[in-house]
Amino acid sequence: MDAARHAVAVSACDQMVIEEPLRLDSGAVLAPITIAYKTYGRLNRDRSNAILICHALTGDQYVLGPHPVTDKPGWWETMVGPGMPLDTERYFIICPNVLGGCMGTTGPAHDDPITGRPYGLTFPVITIRDMVRVQALVVDSLGIGDLFCVIGGSMGGMLVLEWATTLKERVFSAVPIAASVRHSAQNIAFHEVGRQAIMADPDWCGGEYQRTGRRPERGLAVARMAAHITYLSEAALHRKFGRRLQNREQLSFAFADPDFQVESYLRHQGSSFVERFDANSYLYISRAMDYFDLAADHGGTLTAALQGSRARFCVVSFSSDWLFPTAESREIVRALNAIAGNVSFVEIASDKGHDAFLLDEPEFFATITGFLNGAAEHRGLARR
Amino acid sequence: MDAARHAVAVSACDQMVIEEPLRLDSGAVLAPITIAYKTYGRLNRDRSNAILICHALTGDQYVLGPHPVTDKPGWWETMVGPGMPLDTERYFIICPNVLGGCMGTTGPAHDDPITGRPYGLTFPVITIRDMVRVQALVVDSLGIGDLFCVIGGSMGGMLVLEWATTLKERVFSAVPIAASVRHSAQNIAFHEVGRQAIMADPDWCGGEYQRTGRRPERGLAVARMAAHITYLSEAALHRKFGRRLQNREQLSFAFADPDFQVESYLRHQGSSFVERFDANSYLYISRAMDYFDLAADHGGTLTAALQGSRARFCVVSFSSDWLFPTAESREIVRALNAIAGNVSFVEIASDKGHDAFLLDEPEFFATITGFLNGAAEHRGLARR
Repeated sequence: MDAARHAVAVSACDQMVIEEPLRLDSGAVLAPITIAYKTYGRLNRDRSNAILICHALTGDQYVLGPHPVTDKPGWWETMVGPGMPLDTERYFIICPNVLGGCMGTTGPAHDDPITGRPYGLTFPVITIRDMVRVQALVVDSLGIGDLFCVIGGSMGGMLVLEWATTLKERVFSAVPIAASVRHSAQNIAFHEVGRQAIMADPDWCGGEYQRTGRRPERGLAVARMAAHITYLSEAALHRKFGRRLQNREQLSFAFADPDFQVESYLRHQGSSFVERFDANSYLYISRAMDYFDLAADHGGTLTAALQGSRARFCVVSFSSDWLFPTAESREIVRALNAIAGNVSFVEIASDKGHDAFLLDEPEFFATITGFLNGAAEHRGLARR
Repeated sequence: MDAARHAVAVSACDQMVIEEPLRLDSGAVLAPITIAYKTYGRLNRDRSNAILICHALTGDQYVLGPHPVTDKPGWWETMVGPGMPLDTERYFIICPNVLGGCMGTTGPAHDDPITGRPYGLTFPVITIRDMVRVQALVVDSLGIGDLFCVIGGSMGGMLVLEWATTLKERVFSAVPIAASVRHSAQNIAFHEVGRQAIMADPDWCGGEYQRTGRRPERGLAVARMAAHITYLSEAALHRKFGRRLQNREQLSFAFADPDFQVESYLRHQGSSFVERFDANSYLYISRAMDYFDLAADHGGTLTAALQGSRARFCVVSFSSDWLFPTAESREIVRALNAIAGNVSFVEIASDKGHDAFLLDEPEFFATITGFLNGAAEHRGLARR
């Protein structure tokens, strides 16, 4: 593939097919693999200005909208665009849909080329490292050697850390946001509730719902509702909803409709999610997060895992994030300090919980802008 | 009813039927009402040594075991018994199953006397105050005027606060544990997830599952799993389970069985719960908790609600409880201070989360013992 061609005309939306078989952490081999991705901005002639954005569990490649399914804005419009922290006039942004996803990249909803039918639960269980391997195929295909930056929040932050470990020589700078080096017992527990909700839905059909035309929408909606609470904070829920009633003056004393605004909000989160997400993808990607344990997978210690990384790190957490609390970001920082790594760390004061990385947080934007400007200077990238 | 008779021979397990119609907060009228309750110890001749225990959302009257359904120990064996903090050789303990419950007290699983069929969703929506009214009927029937103490944790603590407000003249001392004066937005949200999980189960049959012989066990199990996480703490989950695998040396890379011990533990919590609990009871009782707002229901302010209480209060919270955090207990204390109430407050240092009130916490037991000893002295109760 001719990288120089991309420097002048990178298509806005792409899909590539990798025929070469990929061996996964499970031992399974997957081929072919289709990867859907979006790019924004232009790759420079040195191919030195590429930023890989890693999306979260239920994210996708539509960093900017409109989203083709929901017609809504993209999930990181606050961060990406001309003059934004991830400045599309300066950087070449790549965001692939992760392996196992449901927005075009190979996943359980895809047809298995051998049977011609959807994989369903015959899709191999995947890991964060497998996702990184697939992202690297996109980067390779675009003719890019090393990435100026790998950035992402939540699961995206896990992917950033995996890049900085497995493919450390290809990462110039790394920004893991609201992330962790391993999924905690509490987080595994919440994921398990979601998976059980999906698998309890008779319309899940043992994972083969696609063959039946049914969809486990009720189970997936419950999974989303439970997860969504963990993305917020008690303070944010109190501020946004408190105990305010939904379209009524007093309690209904009935079960037909939500009494409280927070109930109505949650139901909406559930019902809108099922329009755009696949239940089996949820099972596979949540499992990949649960499996993630950077130290265990790379020599037993974090320092062993990160040893040799030359990347400049900016580790970001949010003060009210109880899903990936600041203590977990500090653990990353301590390990990087132990290997004399180049790391800055910022805990952003916010009451918005884990989802703060998707929201309007000026201090967060200033942090990212400042870090990238500094890194770009060291990289010798021209100012816009 | 002859209270003196109870002083010599209180039956160990009782059920009473109240024929007189009870008007509920919803405006609905309920009759007859059956109330199942357990008593422990003996009522003294002054009828001055009665302690009312208020159980939590999924608790029941079986403070001591064996539980008739599960054959397991009672839920407060750590607290109640001879020589225990709630000393059955000194105090007369009463614990009724709450209105809406499923262990003998009238609830949605009971037959509606008018139709002869289970109430299901025709059962009126109830409140914490309605539950207190029904508890008072038990206390009345036992010939007891005022209670030496009303004590309970979680929803039980809400009931304690309601007693100290609605029936303040009948409460000598009050111990709300891990409680709150109103259910928070986050807690309403978690309850709503549980309710949606139940109602999403096709076996719920619009609430009429009893007529079909089906039971929404999968939905109820998911509700329990989500709730159970909120009863623990991240630290407790980490200490008990961490990322340890369940009966295996390495990750399974499959979905058939749990990989992690915490998943297996949660599934067990779900499946054992459905054996002993009714799904509609879960809907009604969780809703009653969500509706609870002591200030709103009594004059708009907490001080207005509690004004006139002569009770001695002991407010207890647990440091790692994120469902009913210490700040919510402090709010009770502040309101009692504002009315110059008699209140002591203890935050127990514990990493066990909300469920600490059910577990072995020596400092907690010492607090309750000390408080009750002091109150008993003021009450003129003989030492054992």
